[in-house]
This record gives sequence, structure tokens and C-alpha cells, in this order.
Amino acid sequence: MHESKHSLRLVHDAKDPRFQNLRSLQTRHGRARSGLFLIEGIRHVARAIEARAPIQSVFIEPSSLNNTFGQKLVERLQHSGVRCVRLTQRLYRELTLAAEPQGIVAVVHQQWTPLDSVRTDSGGLWLAVESVDSPGNLGTMMRTAEATGAAGLLVLGDGADPYEPSAARASMGALFALKLVRCSAWEFVEWARASSIAIVGSSPAGLLDFKSFHCRWPAVLVIGSEKRGLSEHLTQSCDFMVRIPMAGRGDSINAAVAAGVLLYELFDQRRATTRKRSDSSRASERPGPC
Amino acid sequence: MHESKHSLRLVHDAKDPRFQNLRSLQTRHGRARSGLFLIEGIRHVARAIEARAPIQSVFIEPSSLNNTFGQKLVERLQHSGVRCVRLTQRLYRELTLAAEPQGIVAVVHQQWTPLDSVRTDSGGLWLAVESVDSPGNLGTMMRTAEATGAAGLLVLGDGADPYEPSAARASMGALFALKLVRCSAWEFVEWARASSIAIVGSSPAGLLDFKSFHCRWPAVLVIGSEKRGLSEHLTQSCDFMVRIPMAGRGDSINAAVAAGVLLYELFDQRRATTRKRSDSSRASERPGPC
Repeated sequence: MHESKHSLRLVHDAKDPRFQNLRSLQTRHGRARSGLFLIEGIRHVARAIEARAPIQSVFIEPSSLNNTFGQKLVERLQHSGVRCVRLTQRLYRELTLAAEPQGIVAVVHQQWTPLDSVRTDSGGLWLAVESVDSPGNLGTMMRTAEATGAAGLLVLGDGADPYEPSAARASMGALFALKLVRCSAWEFVEWARASSIAIVGSSPAGLLDFKSFHCRWPAVLVIGSEKRGLSEHLTQSCDFMVRIPMAGRGDSINAAVAAGVLLYELFDQRRATTRKRSDSSRASERPGPC
Repeated sequence: MHESKHSLRLVHDAKDPRFQNLRSLQTRHGRARSGLFLIEGIRHVARAIEARAPIQSVFIEPSSLNNTFGQKLVERLQHSGVRCVRLTQRLYRELTLAAEPQGIVAVVHQQWTPLDSVRTDSGGLWLAVESVDSPGNLGTMMRTAEATGAAGLLVLGDGADPYEPSAARASMGALFALKLVRCSAWEFVEWARASSIAIVGSSPAGLLDFKSFHCRWPAVLVIGSEKRGLSEHLTQSCDFMVRIPMAGRGDSINAAVAAGVLLYELFDQRRATTRKRSDSSRASERPGPC
């Protein structure tokens, strides 16, 4: 029989290497060195299991994990051979970043797809970020990317980490659904050119209103920093540079909202293209006049 | 001659009523009781001045306020008779919520517009929120509302406070541009009916794809809670209940992104209506055949 949650190994010392490793995953350096990341909370762990994410281990604090569904998740993970460890309440409180801690933290292997293995279908949509200052914004963008059927996220350079705890949390599981690719901005542009993928950027100086441009497919939407926008190199590389109109005195909207508005526009154009294609293929299937 | 910033009255004791009052504005109770709120940072204070917001007083910490533009703002406020007070570094650090504190905090009078004095023009767009759990989301929604030309924000019931410090910060000054109205959900529905304002809601169960409905004007977009969506009463009161399609496994997107996507759709429909109207008025101005 499997270990019950009461007989789990207990970590009670902050100097215990298992706890030290957990803490290190809250830093970018620790995540980069280990190739692991943390997800916290019942809903997020459930989504990881559902997405068959490679969970390395699970840490629980039984008095906070008082939800039956959460307890069942832990049992399921134990059954499938995932190492489960108990933390004392003190250590768990020290670790958790949640506003309402639910007593469960999973350590998961990061999954990066090499750029040269990425293929995209004729209608494919991708999101690329050059630099996003707020991890919460990055997570929110991943969530909208999944909702709009994007195949994945390309992280250009070192300006953003989709596995940062607030990014992972805000993604609401989207980081398990998206292919994640890290490459330089130069490699990105080369990849897009070689695969005939249209690069769509956005800038207040864009020539085209985002509602009145017609994208070609496949396409990738590239988002720059909240403060500085896209770099000169990427601006020059865009096939379409669109503008989100602003009626007020403010000169910008939140970066995650801007990405969302553009992703939904692309999603809609893509659906329209798909509808047209299927209409014309139905038309060509019709028996001709005889 | 006006006081220089070096001769300003100094608050150094945490028990000083001026500091106690400042601290109380970080709580909802303190804001409600006083009718005041805080804004922090050079950019935000500049926007308040530009918008002629009723600034009651300004608190600075000179060693953090090392930006010349920021110092000029303070001089300008002193000139115009706004009370300026210095805080010790210790008290300022205790007060500030900024990641990169800039040494300036303004106390501003809240400005609420009574519902019965609200008039809306034939093309008017409004945003209403029933309940928003995250103040950052509320602020981001206000920012997009301003960018899409909304006239104001209606806050239904007690579920949200646009003057909460993170909401005010995320609004990036939009809270000075929008008319702010607080009323109950019942008063809101009555107001919309009496003024023939179309109520647009959004729900995963909405019958209409948000891209394929045609709004009538004036209109108000109403946003429910991130977790629970719109209440039954408001759901029943919507003239249009639209759906944002989702392609992924996730069942929702971030509330501020959803509001942004819908506001931009409404903004676009409104621009199209305005274009049509001005086209037809130009057409009617043309001399007829003679």
C-alpha cells in the first residue's frame, strides 16, 4: 500500500537541502540551474496533472490542505510514484506566495522546445515576447494565447521567464498547453523568414489600425517591453506594424490587455480565413452542372 | 516668496496625526470616511495636476525625490497654495507601496458624480463593474476604458473601490479622466432603462459571439467578478449577452483582458457608426440633381 499523507517524510529544518532547493526555485538563478519550477495551489496542480506535466515532487502541509479534492490529488500523485514530502506549517508559511495558501506546492520539470524543431501549420498563430517587465503580465498573455489557439510562446533573449512563480500562476495552466521556445531575437527573425511566418508588431506609430489590416498566415505576434516597446531590430523586422487607437489622454494601455486585444483580432481573422477555406472546399466538392 | 522644500514642515513621528491620516488612506475605511485618496509617484502626480484634480496636500521625502521634473512639480504645487509636508525617510519607507519609491505622495479629494446627474450622448460608452476582486484589474480596466473613449465608470454596490492605491496606480491617471459613479445594481438597471442605454454583458454561456453582435447606442459594458461572473439579476438585465470564444482547455481569460477585448470591440463598432453617420450627413448635404 502507498504511504498515507500522515506517514510522509517530514521536512522541519529550514537548512534541509530539500527546503533549500524549494526556496531556490523562487529565484531565476535557481530555476535556470535546476531546470525546475514551482506551481502552487490545488487548481494549478490539478491542471499540471491533467496536462501530464512532468511533476518531480510534491510538498504538502496537511493542516492547510483541508480540501478533499486536493487530498485526492496528492493520493493520485503518490500512487503514480511522485515523491511527496510534508513541510511543517512554519516552513510552508515561509515558502508560500499565495494569498490564501492551500497547502500544496509541486516541483515540475521545465519543458523547452528547441527552435529548430518547431514546425507551424499553415494557419498557425504564435506569441513572442521580447521583454516583459511584469511576470504577472507575461502569465496573463500566456493565458490569452492559449484561449486564442496560439501554438506557443517564443521568449526572445533573457528578458522574461515564463516559469517565474507569478507568471506561472497568472497563466492559469496555459504554460502547460503552450510550446515554450527560448531563442535570440536574431534567431527568431531568421526562423520566421525561413518558415514564411508573418511577424506582427504593435506600436503607437504603427501605420495600420489593428482592425483594418489583413494578416497573412502563419503569423506571430511580437510584444515588446511595457516601458520601451519593441527594440529597433524587431521593429524593422515586422511585416505588419499595427496601431491600437487610443481615444483618451493616456498614451498606452496595459501590455497584457494590448496583447489580448491583438490576439483576439488575429484569432478572429484566422477563424474567418478557416471558414472561407472550408466554404470554398465545400463549393469545389459540389457536383458541377452536367 | 514660497517656502522652499528645505524649509517645509517635517513629520518625523509615526504618531503625528498627519502621518496617521496618510496611513488611514491605505485602508478602505479611511478613504470612505475622509473622501480622500493617495496617489504616489511623479508620473501619477503630474497626471493629477494636468487633469486639475483637487489635490489637498503633498508629502515628499527629499532624498528620494531626486528627479528635477518631480522637484518642479512640488514647487508648482506650493506656488498654487497646496500644503506640502516633508516626511522622514523612515516614515516614507513605512508608507510607500512603490517598488521604486520616487519620494512623492499626493492626497487628493475623491470625485464622485451622482447617478441622477449623469447624461449620456447618443454614442456614449460606459463601463460598469459589479465586483472586481483584484484592484489592479479594476485600475487596468479604467485605463482601457479611457483609451476606448468611455465616459465613465459605474461602480455597482460595494464590490470595488477605484481609489484603492493599486487600482489608482494601474489606472495610470484614467481615474482622473473618467466620471466615477457609485450606485446599486438596481439603480443602475433603472438608469440604463430610463436613458435607453443598452446593457452589454459577457458570459461563457452568452448566445452571441462578441464579434458578431451589433450593439446599439448608447451602451454600457458590465463586468462581473473574476470568480463568479455577473449576478443573476444583472445577467437577466442585459440587452446583449456576448461570449468571448476560447480555443484552449482553459475556460476563461483574465478579467481585465476580457474587459479590454470587449471595450475595443465596442469602440470599433462605435467608430464605424460615427463614420456611417458622418458619411450619410455628407451625402444629405450634397446638392440634389437639378
